[in-house]
Amino acid sequence: MTVRVGVIGGGQLARMMIAPAVEIGLDIRVLAEDEGMSAQLAATAVGDYRDLETVRAFARDVDVITFDHEHVPQDVLRALVADGIQVHPGPDALQYAQDKLVMRARLAELDVPQPEWAPVRDAGELQRFIDEHGGGAVVKTPRGGYDGKGVRVVRSGSDAADWFASAGGEALLAEELVSFRRELAQQIARRPSGEMVAYPVVETVQRDGVCAEVIAPAPGTTARVVELAEQIGRRVAEGIGVTGMLAVELFETDDDRILVNELAMRPHNSGHWSQDGAVTGQFEQHLRAVADLPLGRTDPRQPWTVMINILGGPAEGSLADRFAPAMQEYRDAKIHTYGKAPRPGRKVGHVNVSGDDLEDVVYTARAAAALFV
Amino acid sequence: MTVRVGVIGGGQLARMMIAPAVEIGLDIRVLAEDEGMSAQLAATAVGDYRDLETVRAFARDVDVITFDHEHVPQDVLRALVADGIQVHPGPDALQYAQDKLVMRARLAELDVPQPEWAPVRDAGELQRFIDEHGGGAVVKTPRGGYDGKGVRVVRSGSDAADWFASAGGEALLAEELVSFRRELAQQIARRPSGEMVAYPVVETVQRDGVCAEVIAPAPGTTARVVELAEQIGRRVAEGIGVTGMLAVELFETDDDRILVNELAMRPHNSGHWSQDGAVTGQFEQHLRAVADLPLGRTDPRQPWTVMINILGGPAEGSLADRFAPAMQEYRDAKIHTYGKAPRPGRKVGHVNVSGDDLEDVVYTARAAAALFV
Repeated sequence: MTVRVGVIGGGQLARMMIAPAVEIGLDIRVLAEDEGMSAQLAATAVGDYRDLETVRAFARDVDVITFDHEHVPQDVLRALVADGIQVHPGPDALQYAQDKLVMRARLAELDVPQPEWAPVRDAGELQRFIDEHGGGAVVKTPRGGYDGKGVRVVRSGSDAADWFASAGGEALLAEELVSFRRELAQQIARRPSGEMVAYPVVETVQRDGVCAEVIAPAPGTTARVVELAEQIGRRVAEGIGVTGMLAVELFETDDDRILVNELAMRPHNSGHWSQDGAVTGQFEQHLRAVADLPLGRTDPRQPWTVMINILGGPAEGSLADRFAPAMQEYRDAKIHTYGKAPRPGRKVGHVNVSGDDLEDVVYTARAAAALFV
Repeated sequence: MTVRVGVIGGGQLARMMIAPAVEIGLDIRVLAEDEGMSAQLAATAVGDYRDLETVRAFARDVDVITFDHEHVPQDVLRALVADGIQVHPGPDALQYAQDKLVMRARLAELDVPQPEWAPVRDAGELQRFIDEHGGGAVVKTPRGGYDGKGVRVVRSGSDAADWFASAGGEALLAEELVSFRRELAQQIARRPSGEMVAYPVVETVQRDGVCAEVIAPAPGTTARVVELAEQIGRRVAEGIGVTGMLAVELFETDDDRILVNELAMRPHNSGHWSQDGAVTGQFEQHLRAVADLPLGRTDPRQPWTVMINILGGPAEGSLADRFAPAMQEYRDAKIHTYGKAPRPGRKVGHVNVSGDDLEDVVYTARAAAALFV
């Protein structure tokens, strides 16, 4: 029978699952937060994903539940599982994307290389961590952060006083300030059976804590780093039992180490290049994995693919109005828009360009994306 | 603003427009004939496309109307145009896809090479045509035929007696029996502004009057034929004012002529290869053309792409159940299913395979498709 996939959350990641779901013959349904969201076309329900009965009613008519985001509470996830519903990724895996302290502890158990870290409960503990790690640290709220939110570079224990005040005695996560050459990301897809495939490791460029550009594969990467990134990705995916897509954000340090920065258990911005640049895009791959279908090939279709985010959108007029001129001028650009209203800094779309010459590809992708802001 | 594209008809062609519509940010809506059709996901209305008020109500909330099929009556189409609605392709163009006698007459005016033909009103006229054309002919009902229906090879004027009896005095179309080496198809996209792009000419293989296989580009084709096919396609598209995709089905005759067999003014089975095998697939291209957006590149992504139709489906069990084994065994195959129930001879899906070696590609595509029947 046709597999019915229910996606919780109606954002652009759910939206970008629609096309491959139709193509490979899955019945996709979305529980959206509101009317008129990015994934509106497939929305069969609107409601609060934190409300068990809302989610339960949605889950009743699907064969497998997956996600646009990682914010569905553990008690809701575990109730679904207790109801006998397939949930991918499951709550045991998702906890590591939901709580960065739990994630760091698990990665340590798995012996995965990562920045030095510690839970800190007050300014004094944070100051000690700073003193022991070269006079600086990154402080993160363990829960709810994304796109640079909930992340702060500090030089003194008092720099996070406001966060300690509102944390209500809960620990924050302190991490060493890693001196890195660049950031990488490794995508892995894993089926419930344990079968895995890895994408080529990519380079990501962040601006103001938000992913701005991705180059696939990561240029000038040594064979050792390529292999190490894949090994880390596989170890994490298997060790925490991810089903679906896993993105492992990595630092390539100045002293040639590869350290895990963050995890995401869903299609991720660092994998958008694969929609046009790989034989199987990450959204199709995620659906295959959560529906327990054989995974697709991950090799690049062309030597280079560059992804540029469209952030914010035009100050005047609609994003859609920029579409025709951009298509006209940059015939090689694959432009994706999310059906969202422009707002400063908001991810409203992205551009993928593939080709043989990296410099050309970067130029074209940036130029096309620039027409939207 | 986001362009709202309304598609009349809920079959697989409408379904396959959904994915690119989402990707390029168009708002797609479908007027389906029934509940549960192929394009169900985007269906916003269910009703009879022959009923003006039904179509008018659907058209009220869209910016442009296009089609899954060519059967919307002229009076309905012309009423929409009179209402000020954008209709692509428009009624003036669509009449040539709706009536093969009108089409033949127009192609003659355009000086496009085609088989010899004549309208015939009774067995006597047909017999004379047969006598003048080597003892045989193809008789076609001018309206309503598709996939080999409404087409008959005859040797005698009396062979079409039943059709003359039910034609109520209307003429049938008689065409010479063309002795052809193979069949080709030329896809053209044309915008309202007149801008056109051409796909590489492909070879099509019919079985029992139904498209079975397509090889893109057509192997062993001389430069003269490639050029001629494109010239014919462009002349037809321009001459009849098509907007959207045009498929021109061609005979390559034993004596090296290229003759027009049929026209289709929509994405066509002979263009399905382009979904995976061309930079811009025909469904995206059709949407770009009807929404008057710049057209995309048509060059192949790989040297060869082969499309095999899945006809009928399994005698037992569901088509979806064959999906996982086929994906598992043929990782290079892109499998498309239409969400339709299996029925002998029915088009329920297709497989695209691309690669460098034509023999391998054909083998893989056939083998993968065979797992579905």
